[in-house]
Amino acid sequence: MARGKYVLGIDYGTESGRAVVVRVQDGKMLSSSVVPYPDGVMDERLPEGPQLEPDWALQNPVDYLYVLEKAVPKALKESKVKAEDVIGIGTDFTASSPMPAKADGTPLCALPKYRKTPHAYVKLWKHHAAQPEANRINEVARERNEEFLRIYGGKYSSEWFFSKLLQVLDEAPAIYDAMDRFIEAGDWLVWQLTGEEKRNTCTAGYKGMWVKGHGFPSPDFFRALHPRLENVIAEKVGEEYFPLGALAGGLTPSWAKKMGLEEGTPVAIGNVDAHVAVPACTVTQPGSLVMIMGTSVCHMLLGQEKQMVEGMCGTVEDGIVPGLWGYEAGQSAVGDIFAWFFGHGVPDYIHREARRMKAPFQVVLEKRAAALRPGESGLVALDWWNGNRSVLVDVDLTGVILGMTLATRAEEIYRALIEATAFGTRTIIEAFESKGITVNELVACGGLPEKNRLLMQIYADVTGREIKLADPLQTCSALGAAMHGAVAAGAAAGGYDTITEAAQKMARVQSATFKPIAKNHAVYDQLYGEYHTLHDYFGRGGNDVMKRLKNLKRERTEK
Amino acid sequence: MARGKYVLGIDYGTESGRAVVVRVQDGKMLSSSVVPYPDGVMDERLPEGPQLEPDWALQNPVDYLYVLEKAVPKALKESKVKAEDVIGIGTDFTASSPMPAKADGTPLCALPKYRKTPHAYVKLWKHHAAQPEANRINEVARERNEEFLRIYGGKYSSEWFFSKLLQVLDEAPAIYDAMDRFIEAGDWLVWQLTGEEKRNTCTAGYKGMWVKGHGFPSPDFFRALHPRLENVIAEKVGEEYFPLGALAGGLTPSWAKKMGLEEGTPVAIGNVDAHVAVPACTVTQPGSLVMIMGTSVCHMLLGQEKQMVEGMCGTVEDGIVPGLWGYEAGQSAVGDIFAWFFGHGVPDYIHREARRMKAPFQVVLEKRAAALRPGESGLVALDWWNGNRSVLVDVDLTGVILGMTLATRAEEIYRALIEATAFGTRTIIEAFESKGITVNELVACGGLPEKNRLLMQIYADVTGREIKLADPLQTCSALGAAMHGAVAAGAAAGGYDTITEAAQKMARVQSATFKPIAKNHAVYDQLYGEYHTLHDYFGRGGNDVMKRLKNLKRERTEK
Repeated sequence: MARGKYVLGIDYGTESGRAVVVRVQDGKMLSSSVVPYPDGVMDERLPEGPQLEPDWALQNPVDYLYVLEKAVPKALKESKVKAEDVIGIGTDFTASSPMPAKADGTPLCALPKYRKTPHAYVKLWKHHAAQPEANRINEVARERNEEFLRIYGGKYSSEWFFSKLLQVLDEAPAIYDAMDRFIEAGDWLVWQLTGEEKRNTCTAGYKGMWVKGHGFPSPDFFRALHPRLENVIAEKVGEEYFPLGALAGGLTPSWAKKMGLEEGTPVAIGNVDAHVAVPACTVTQPGSLVMIMGTSVCHMLLGQEKQMVEGMCGTVEDGIVPGLWGYEAGQSAVGDIFAWFFGHGVPDYIHREARRMKAPFQVVLEKRAAALRPGESGLVALDWWNGNRSVLVDVDLTGVILGMTLATRAEEIYRALIEATAFGTRTIIEAFESKGITVNELVACGGLPEKNRLLMQIYADVTGREIKLADPLQTCSALGAAMHGAVAAGAAAGGYDTITEAAQKMARVQSATFKPIAKNHAVYDQLYGEYHTLHDYFGRGGNDVMKRLKNLKRERTEK
Repeated sequence: MARGKYVLGIDYGTESGRAVVVRVQDGKMLSSSVVPYPDGVMDERLPEGPQLEPDWALQNPVDYLYVLEKAVPKALKESKVKAEDVIGIGTDFTASSPMPAKADGTPLCALPKYRKTPHAYVKLWKHHAAQPEANRINEVARERNEEFLRIYGGKYSSEWFFSKLLQVLDEAPAIYDAMDRFIEAGDWLVWQLTGEEKRNTCTAGYKGMWVKGHGFPSPDFFRALHPRLENVIAEKVGEEYFPLGALAGGLTPSWAKKMGLEEGTPVAIGNVDAHVAVPACTVTQPGSLVMIMGTSVCHMLLGQEKQMVEGMCGTVEDGIVPGLWGYEAGQSAVGDIFAWFFGHGVPDYIHREARRMKAPFQVVLEKRAAALRPGESGLVALDWWNGNRSVLVDVDLTGVILGMTLATRAEEIYRALIEATAFGTRTIIEAFESKGITVNELVACGGLPEKNRLLMQIYADVTGREIKLADPLQTCSALGAAMHGAVAAGAAAGGYDTITEAAQKMARVQSATFKPIAKNHAVYDQLYGEYHTLHDYFGRGGNDVMKRLKNLKRERTEK
């Protein structure tokens, strides 16, 4: 029994890191401290370096250490928990966000020599500049009929580990030569905390071509990609991978001191933010689709058996919960589309009404959109403002709004955009179900569900499924990280031996849920049919206008 | 020689009427007076009557007389021209805008009994509620292979005379019984001025199934539409029609007194605003496409011979200039789309910049949009916010914007909307040219070209043709009306015997023109190809999603 014991969870998001202190006994979160990354997301230029090309997105790994130094002591202090009562530390990270490092763990970008070299930094998950490399990987893998390609639903993404590594080799061979290790930032962080380079199976499985029982593709495959890559696994990546919840090592004296914890505190193997959220949403069995809803949405699902589902981000044995297949799908922009609309599409009359009501304009939009009936706007949209991640896996797809008349109002467009993202989720659910992987209910967490009741009801109505909300909603990844810290500590030390046990004790959902309204669901069946037809027409080669327009845009911007 | 002689032109637009005094000798416009219609466009309710159904648009004919009483004396006074020097009066009107009247010309809606009855009012050109009736007309005409249907490019519009008449009979048979005459408002106005009901061939030819040398379809056809319509021509419409520029009669004593003109002043047969603009733009020969650009755009073209062009609004012998075939095509929303965007799509940062610059926000949008290269936005749109008039003739088509990303900005959408309307014009030009009717240059008039240099340049670049601007731009219909007044007066009275002669003396274009830029035209060739593919996919049955969404919207709004 874990009475009086605590774990530390550290969640690394896109813009900031968060440290939480959680009671092992019941998952109660005693404190939470957020620290933004000083250099943020570098997508236009390096602080002291050159301007970046379009589609780049970098981070400075020094910022991750800054979070450890600032957020952890603050969370500890706020929780009033003593260092000796913290029995474990778990972390989670965005993925795939890999970086080059020296053999001792020093990031290349921390060396003065490389401070102005973009390829020396972390390539954040949303770095989209490695598409030519991803195309080459897919081509070679298809020719060779590589196992990993089937696992990734037929396409390896430009966002993933080896696309980014190949881009370094293509564009900055000197950086490729200078790096001893190319490593996920999440694994690098655990290495910093423990002094041991122990990489996790989750990121490797979902983003890094690694398959349980098989390991990586052969040197032949890598040589076919690039002659110099032949021995990349042995030389720079490593062959040994550790399962989720495993113990990476004890906290180093130096980091124990800086964070105010005890030396040797167990640190769990690295994890991925979306994956760690699943048990934190109480889900450790098949049937419940977890949606981590923020700027983008990740869909996580457990299955009893291996199925190849179209356009998955990954299908990994033990990838989320040991003993089950973990499926990951996603929508590359959801909250981001609404933010785009808030910034670029909201007319004066909404702002004026907001001033009259003394309310944020988003509240006015939501109120007006909520007053509309499904189908009343006459609009349908395709939610591809940032391409399509699942099921089409195509970053060159773009957004569509169809059905405008002279009477169309802003709140109708807003509602159509929400509906489009719900149709995107339904498309993913149908891809799962077409392979016999059932989705009985949805469990949502993340920042988006908090204030968007209309959005949640539309998702319930569109999917025809009840939606539960995680508790806590916004810090569920941090909770999941902490839960893995409890598993790394183990039952003998006051933690748990399995993540399933940790979930039973530490995770919960809110009592209020969103239930589908039958008559709305019937209308959305029709609208989804229209979405589906347009989805296939524009997304499956019926009309590749989006790609041609993107090419033209590139040509015209370069000239 | 017409030295010292003047003509009065009265132009009836959608929102207001305008009177101008023009010197016959050289077309110099001495004065111009605009009077808005007191009841305006009634599209939501009658002033003292019930709420109107969607798609209705009515006017009160009493407002037209109000224009005569207010605008004409004001224009005369401002011009300092003496009544005895005004040798003729010409008018032009929107079309088809028909109305029911008693045998003495009293509008039904002017009778207290019918003041609250919507069907007793003028059905304005943009009244779109007679689509079921238009469908029936098209069905019956197709079955019977009626000549007029070929002339209208294969479809008779819901905006036109008999669709609206049939709607009265369907929905308000008592009004049908009570009316002695069903007449175009433009012909009714000439009737008021002269005391003679003399109808014009132009409106009848373009909107009323009337064909030179054939007259109307047979009573059999009308009976097939509705048993009670069998003798509608003889009973309520009339068989005698008068050519453009002909003399309708002399001004009545009563109207001469009210307007401050001489009794018996020659009044020309009624005309249509778009058609009368053609000679006022100097065009009396084939090869020059006149674009009357405002909330919508009318395209007028002259041809040597009869050709059936897809989706024309009409093809009428002598319909614009005697001796030539007059072709009319159109786009049902152009300025209206920009107005929609100004009202519903312009975000805060444009308004803020406008305040900083102390400029209208439209100027900021235009400046930003003008800084973009063709193709740079990655967007393409379909300009169907108010359906498609030519070449698809389908009011149930709706607008599309395609290509949005998270980086898309308001000025890019604005530019894409302008480009979409230019692609719509190019579609019409290509329909003409596919039948061997050449379009060598464009001549623009109307309110839109005045302040929209970017728009005009885009039209030149998209169509690959030089664009001239009429002089005056905005009052060219009023000038054209006045020119027809000079023809009605005749050379003997100091006017002209033909409209060609009047155009040579009274009409002119501006010296500055818009010439296509070759490299822009090349990019627009690509973008037009994309527009064209989407146009045919959504407009020709590839995917009838727009109609299904409109139907769903109707169902959902009714419930």
